[in-house]
Amino acid sequence: MTDDTGLLPSELIARKRDGHELTERQLRMLVEGMLAGDVGEAQVAALLMAGVIRGFSTSEAKALTAILWESGETLDLSSLSGPTIDKHSTGGVGDGTTLVVAPLVAAAGGQMVKLSGRGLGHTGGTLDKLEAIPGFDVDLAPDRMLEIAEHVGCVVAAQTDRLVPADRMLYALRDLTATVESTALIASSVMSKKLAAGASTIVLDVKAGDGAFMADAEAAEELAELCVTLAQDAGRRCGALVTDMDQPLGRQMGNALEVSEAIALLRGGPSGRLAEVALELATLALSEARPTQGGSDAADAVRQDLVRRWERGEALERLEQMIAAQGGDAEVCRDPAAILPSAPLQREVVATAGGTVRQISARRVGEAVARLGAGRARKGDDVDPAVGIVLDVEVGDHIDAGQRVALVHARSADDAQRAVDAVQSAIALGDAVPRDVVLSRVLLG
Amino acid sequence: MTDDTGLLPSELIARKRDGHELTERQLRMLVEGMLAGDVGEAQVAALLMAGVIRGFSTSEAKALTAILWESGETLDLSSLSGPTIDKHSTGGVGDGTTLVVAPLVAAAGGQMVKLSGRGLGHTGGTLDKLEAIPGFDVDLAPDRMLEIAEHVGCVVAAQTDRLVPADRMLYALRDLTATVESTALIASSVMSKKLAAGASTIVLDVKAGDGAFMADAEAAEELAELCVTLAQDAGRRCGALVTDMDQPLGRQMGNALEVSEAIALLRGGPSGRLAEVALELATLALSEARPTQGGSDAADAVRQDLVRRWERGEALERLEQMIAAQGGDAEVCRDPAAILPSAPLQREVVATAGGTVRQISARRVGEAVARLGAGRARKGDDVDPAVGIVLDVEVGDHIDAGQRVALVHARSADDAQRAVDAVQSAIALGDAVPRDVVLSRVLLG
Repeated sequence: MTDDTGLLPSELIARKRDGHELTERQLRMLVEGMLAGDVGEAQVAALLMAGVIRGFSTSEAKALTAILWESGETLDLSSLSGPTIDKHSTGGVGDGTTLVVAPLVAAAGGQMVKLSGRGLGHTGGTLDKLEAIPGFDVDLAPDRMLEIAEHVGCVVAAQTDRLVPADRMLYALRDLTATVESTALIASSVMSKKLAAGASTIVLDVKAGDGAFMADAEAAEELAELCVTLAQDAGRRCGALVTDMDQPLGRQMGNALEVSEAIALLRGGPSGRLAEVALELATLALSEARPTQGGSDAADAVRQDLVRRWERGEALERLEQMIAAQGGDAEVCRDPAAILPSAPLQREVVATAGGTVRQISARRVGEAVARLGAGRARKGDDVDPAVGIVLDVEVGDHIDAGQRVALVHARSADDAQRAVDAVQSAIALGDAVPRDVVLSRVLLG
Repeated sequence: MTDDTGLLPSELIARKRDGHELTERQLRMLVEGMLAGDVGEAQVAALLMAGVIRGFSTSEAKALTAILWESGETLDLSSLSGPTIDKHSTGGVGDGTTLVVAPLVAAAGGQMVKLSGRGLGHTGGTLDKLEAIPGFDVDLAPDRMLEIAEHVGCVVAAQTDRLVPADRMLYALRDLTATVESTALIASSVMSKKLAAGASTIVLDVKAGDGAFMADAEAAEELAELCVTLAQDAGRRCGALVTDMDQPLGRQMGNALEVSEAIALLRGGPSGRLAEVALELATLALSEARPTQGGSDAADAVRQDLVRRWERGEALERLEQMIAAQGGDAEVCRDPAAILPSAPLQREVVATAGGTVRQISARRVGEAVARLGAGRARKGDDVDPAVGIVLDVEVGDHIDAGQRVALVHARSADDAQRAVDAVQSAIALGDAVPRDVVLSRVLLG
């Protein structure tokens, strides 16, 4: 098996090893060859390592995106009436943004069809969060997804194995071979899934901070720019926010706890960091989706309209409709505490000293939530819907010694104690100016 | 599965990716894990690629050598009476050196137990060459090998699969993943086999030139130094020559043709480039094996003794005894033409112009010999014992237009014509000072 210039897989790998660029046809031979079983995983692993060290170019990233995207089925959203919108977050702690953005976009006339995988994060993914609602079904046939999107304006469902199979295979390999850390590979993995999911407008929330995959805002911005480039290259509208993940985004972390926080937020009106990110993402999505209304004044108008709809309860109504359409108990939107599972033990975290909160390490809090059982250490693990941590404070708040700063929801006393200790060690006092939650916007072209 | 500091295989790979050094225990976990099936080939491939690009240190090379060497059975030569000597060549064109060195060392009282693999070279390996002799058996039990070594002084046998299994697995992986080109990996592969084969003295012939794996003499010298270091680190005596492979070493290329050239040389006395390399390797081996006789005067004395034995026919006698002991028709030493297979067609290569031979590309001649059928394109292929090329000239010779410069031995007219063309294009005329066949000596410590 050779490429169109007669080169063997090992010769293509040698080219990448020596820092040369591969063509789309060459990359296609290797990746599709792996899917067909003609190219070994070891060969692809060597290629990936060479690329991680030498770097993949933008045109290689475009080629990889196309190869992954076209490796399986794709979703056809052309029958939907509204502008179709998709959203992706690179993942953080207390990041229940989808639960707020999806109904908000729906309320403003967009149609969000959001496919999610089962994440390996501090908490489960969006699917796990929604499944904390009794009866909620994420396994929907494509027709049913489109029907809900058309009538409700938003739907969240599980990505099937038939979508981007090459990405799944490649990702599993990268995870094992220390080749995850490549902007080009991350961007092509993310964007292949978004392109296969069919929306005409895509908004991205790229997290930067100690609780994110990328600690550094510059690296996050670079990733955001490449993702937007890849989407635009494929003829989609796309914009990205780089947002702060030095402290948890929401106040509640855990599967049911994040659903409960989203509902409270949609009921109470936009306020706080999670609401700000959700509002900015929805504004970005609708402004990109309807570019003829142009300019930053237009974006302000979109945002004002979203705030009005939010305050009138239109977004909560959409969430309620979506939950009902997907078989969940919609009563959760009126009385979350009565419907959502709760953990047997609650334990307070009390401040040992007074002062200004300088830092709440998102990474440490996230790890504590995962250890409580809310996350998944490996694929196929069950997640506990009920456990988690609720923070009472954020960076910049003044606290007194003895004040409650968090509440731990746990399965056992031991689990609770470990989480209490972890939250205490995650919080540092001192002078601090909290950074804006939206660090930058990436809007190309 | 984690190492003694709790790191996962993927975390060790990440360390190498980022340019750090791994410990012997960490490398052992990865390589032995691969053998046991706990670490995937893809993970080892990623490690190898990271190491090829970032570099493996000398201490990593020492660790890898030990891991490979100890991965299978080893040969115990301690029952032999003489100094035990092994020899390795990195492979070239017209390199029948072993057929001359082994009986020469034996004639001088050394004992050479030479294990060979089935090479993927322009011609077959030493085993294939010897198998051109009717009846010659390379598959010997260890006891029989030691018996022949004790009584004859030299024996050449096939390396079994039980020797250095990790090296075989790693080499197959490197070949597929473009990770062959690493001095540390090459040296540890070569030396693990030599250490497992048990000789107390090891001499190496590292080729440099267009017909060798390493074109560049400096890179060859670096490889030679690392190999000698690895052997000495394991308590063996070792020295290396870096020798010229810009033109073929011998005049005859092909399996039977190389046996025939070695016999003619042992019969006629030391003369020419192949004889010089054989004599220098044997001198190096015996000087290293008996270092108490010390100094370069001593080496001169060893060489003079070897020349005398050679001229008295003692080396040819040892070859004859070895062939007989291994079941071959020893009559080949008296009348090679009568015993060795010959090709149905001989075709002359005639000089199209006169002048001084500036270059005979070893690579082109080697490829032509391989295409005639003397070599092996993939493992398990048969080699043709009879075909090959005999050169009448070497670099620096004056030739006239119309003079015969080579004779092609082929299976078919088409094959012959292709080889004639190849030899013609391999020879260039012009001013040239031929370089010495021994480019440098590496004797450490």
